[in-house]
Amino acid sequence: MTKETTGPLRLLRETHEERVLAALRTQGAMTRAQLAERTGLSRATLSSIVQDLLATDAVTETAVDGAARGRGRPVTLLTLNAAGGLALGMDLGHRRIQVTVANVAHEIVGSAGIACSERTPWARRLELALELVDSLATAHHLSLAALAGIGVGVVGPVSETGGHRQPSRAARIGLVRDGLTDRFGLPVYVDNNTRLAALAEAIWGAGAGLQNVLYLRLSYGVGGGLVLGGHLFSGAGGAAGELGHVSVDRDGPRCRCGGHGCLERYVSLAAVLEQCGVRRFDEVLRRLSDGDESVRRIIATAGTRIGAVLAAACNTVNPETVVIGGELAAAGNNLLEPIRAAVHQYAHSQVRQGLQIAPATLGNDDAARGGIALVLRRSALLAGYPASASGLPPGVQLHDIG
Amino acid sequence: MTKETTGPLRLLRETHEERVLAALRTQGAMTRAQLAERTGLSRATLSSIVQDLLATDAVTETAVDGAARGRGRPVTLLTLNAAGGLALGMDLGHRRIQVTVANVAHEIVGSAGIACSERTPWARRLELALELVDSLATAHHLSLAALAGIGVGVVGPVSETGGHRQPSRAARIGLVRDGLTDRFGLPVYVDNNTRLAALAEAIWGAGAGLQNVLYLRLSYGVGGGLVLGGHLFSGAGGAAGELGHVSVDRDGPRCRCGGHGCLERYVSLAAVLEQCGVRRFDEVLRRLSDGDESVRRIIATAGTRIGAVLAAACNTVNPETVVIGGELAAAGNNLLEPIRAAVHQYAHSQVRQGLQIAPATLGNDDAARGGIALVLRRSALLAGYPASASGLPPGVQLHDIG
Repeated sequence: MTKETTGPLRLLRETHEERVLAALRTQGAMTRAQLAERTGLSRATLSSIVQDLLATDAVTETAVDGAARGRGRPVTLLTLNAAGGLALGMDLGHRRIQVTVANVAHEIVGSAGIACSERTPWARRLELALELVDSLATAHHLSLAALAGIGVGVVGPVSETGGHRQPSRAARIGLVRDGLTDRFGLPVYVDNNTRLAALAEAIWGAGAGLQNVLYLRLSYGVGGGLVLGGHLFSGAGGAAGELGHVSVDRDGPRCRCGGHGCLERYVSLAAVLEQCGVRRFDEVLRRLSDGDESVRRIIATAGTRIGAVLAAACNTVNPETVVIGGELAAAGNNLLEPIRAAVHQYAHSQVRQGLQIAPATLGNDDAARGGIALVLRRSALLAGYPASASGLPPGVQLHDIG
Repeated sequence: MTKETTGPLRLLRETHEERVLAALRTQGAMTRAQLAERTGLSRATLSSIVQDLLATDAVTETAVDGAARGRGRPVTLLTLNAAGGLALGMDLGHRRIQVTVANVAHEIVGSAGIACSERTPWARRLELALELVDSLATAHHLSLAALAGIGVGVVGPVSETGGHRQPSRAARIGLVRDGLTDRFGLPVYVDNNTRLAALAEAIWGAGAGLQNVLYLRLSYGVGGGLVLGGHLFSGAGGAAGELGHVSVDRDGPRCRCGGHGCLERYVSLAAVLEQCGVRRFDEVLRRLSDGDESVRRIIATAGTRIGAVLAAACNTVNPETVVIGGELAAAGNNLLEPIRAAVHQYAHSQVRQGLQIAPATLGNDDAARGGIALVLRRSALLAGYPASASGLPPGVQLHDIG
């Protein structure tokens, strides 16, 4: 995409739209004047936003009883139209498929998930996801005709351009996109599911309402995501937040990413299970609760390594909060305290000041919720900007793989 | 400041304004229709921006000869009014004072600098800066009445709130602000001069036109700045980019920042001079050109340490380019090649892809230019938003210390 259509332009409408939606969500019905005051947006800007929100049925307008004033347009109240549209979020993870539906007010309508195997073929995963969608629609009497779009989280990097170094990955993403487009004929937005979880934690979870959130997911893989200035930040190549591949031992073994001594090699779920000599993480948790000192020490060492990496990342972006997710976070303070101690020891004093390090609060639907957030933002973008050559507004390419 | 007035809102007007100014700067005179097409902004949004730019004399409007159409307003051409306003940038550095003036078209009108001692009192620094302003005005026949504002770079952290942990620093900043306010009666924006240099490199320098730029300054102190999505990113506490205080040796000595084994302890100008056993950096450069192997090795070791820190920072924010500034950058490829090698060895393959690591291209006026960029953006903000309690629009507090 061209210079003009990167980052900033993409953020504009999201920011406008968020401020207006947030105001309506937290305060209910409001007049345009109240909305302008509440959002601090200029009348002209607000008016174009409201126009778009009305056009997409995200907002409804009702006249105030007999309140036609002497001059100007009659006073009307703007409210979120919870029935104005639905967004579908999907997470096609390594071991689980999750589907979640929300309305334009960001209210979660329903969610359903199912475990799968790492070996489950992607065509089958998509089938399972679509079955979950149908069951949700039945259970909650949802009309899928009201869907505004679909946001999908997938494992592995998702590039801006759709160009992927692994053909298998590109094919997998293409299969998902085409399957969903054929079924629904709606915009489909795909991003890495860890990054989507970061966005969800910043909207609904441990970072709710904060502008700068650093999210670290400690699972079979170790990844992360950044929400900066209230927006999901992908970086130049879609690889921002790759904290699992920060080197913790410059003389360490070569990593699949091309680096050396990457954090992931030492603190991934698989690495920790191996160090503990067990096969399942709940066994690790059991031993921790039984006061197994060697297991406690293994988790503490992992926490110290993670904390040192987080300290460098926090010195770089100075977030308000660090959110720790993934299975490993279930170790609680056995992991979090060593992380906090290491961040305190290695981060700049200004960076440490007021920094929160908190466990993720969302469950299995975190990435699916992030997909929903993409849709609710993009659907406004779609209304807000002239179509580009791709038939999509500038910037949407960033998360749209079409 | 309240949640509503942090990051995103602050960025809105900058982004609008930039796109419009950039279009006019690169394409000259345009009609509103052409401007809307060129910027991709909605008519309503563009109209409010143009209104603000006309109000601040940044843009002028001229009717197209006899082009009053049958319906609607007559077609007019919008052009940048190079004489519509001036912005003054100052850098009150450790060893040098620099003053630069630009017009609203971001064209540098003039610049002047003078060396000072670290012991020069701040009142005297301000006097020297004001004398430089007067000499510039005389030399370039500038009317200081056309100034829109003043952007000042100072050493050390500048907090969002103006609250500083070192009273001496708060007093110093207050002295600068009051002195400039008394003299000019204009908005004064203050930020860390390294961060302002980062912004300037992303607008006029080695990162010109790029959206995501990581800047590292290697001087007596080691600091950095981030331009993300086209905007100066300060982080939650104004400490984003503190790469000099990333630990390169977790068992290393305690640093003034509270960390351990910080990069700055190993690669600051003072540290390198000590390692080389010389007093001035030009002696280091002379020995390099004479092929002094021990000095070459010292610089290479510094480069490797710097590269490892940059690799972690790049894994975090995935920038398009890394810009290396400060005196140490004069070592050229003796420093840059080891930096590039280390980044290549330790950064994620996706992050390395297409990553540029380039020396800074701006000179002594880099931070002063950054101050100018703050003014040219803020002056539009001032026109763009209703005044907050502080009498300034939401978000302006971030760089305004009043």
